[in-house]
Amino acid sequence: MPRLNHVAIVVEDLETALPFFRDLLGLPLDRVADVPAEEVRVAFFPMEGGEIELVQPTNSESGVARFLARRGPGLHHICLEVEDLEGALERLRAAGVQLIHEAPLTGQGGTRYAFIHPKSAFGVLVELYERPRAGS
Amino acid sequence: MPRLNHVAIVVEDLETALPFFRDLLGLPLDRVADVPAEEVRVAFFPMEGGEIELVQPTNSESGVARFLARRGPGLHHICLEVEDLEGALERLRAAGVQLIHEAPLTGQGGTRYAFIHPKSAFGVLVELYERPRAGS
Repeated sequence: MPRLNHVAIVVEDLETALPFFRDLLGLPLDRVADVPAEEVRVAFFPMEGGEIELVQPTNSESGVARFLARRGPGLHHICLEVEDLEGALERLRAAGVQLIHEAPLTGQGGTRYAFIHPKSAFGVLVELYERPRAGS
Repeated sequence: MPRLNHVAIVVEDLETALPFFRDLLGLPLDRVADVPAEEVRVAFFPMEGGEIELVQPTNSESGVARFLARRGPGLHHICLEVEDLEGALERLRAAGVQLIHEAPLTGQGGTRYAFIHPKSAFGVLVELYERPRAGS
């Protein structure tokens, strides 16, 4: 069964947004880190019931930066964990779903992931993570 | 510590959206129910790591319907559980945060909730649920 891994929120500036999410909502900030591969800087709030991530683009050309310019700050994507990422992508592709990544990418820490295009997901940008297999 | 209770996605038509979320993404559909107080019909997918809800407006005047008309389908709001809802609202109000509901509402099943205005939450519509107290 898929698990909700995280919800990402795009903001213009992390330092401006942190007081609201950390201090007023009381979300538990774990760390702030640059993610160069995605051209973003991310604040991670690991929580029971799925992590919340605040994402600030670090240039004006990335997908996240263009989303921010077009839609403004707000909810950006959800990430679901699946057990077999290739199998999930193949099933989606066979059903005519438009993928942003036809094959899994590998992120920091070795996580394999891919995004589904929101055009095929009712306006929702959906990221799929491959859940580490038991024993691996 | 707050817990992510659910993520809500607004769609034009549940029946059209269900095959993608249930059959292709494999999300576990628990039930579809009308929520007259919110003027919506909701498909609930309870998941480890936070529930996903698909929300279809049932008229054209509700807040959800106007969101759909203005922004199109997609991510609508996140819901965080807090232990003391009045206390959380008071803290937010004192900090100048704009609330949609100044006092908690009571939903189906007795859940007490209130929404924070996205203008004060970096573009994110945030719902707060009061977590049932232990022993109550």
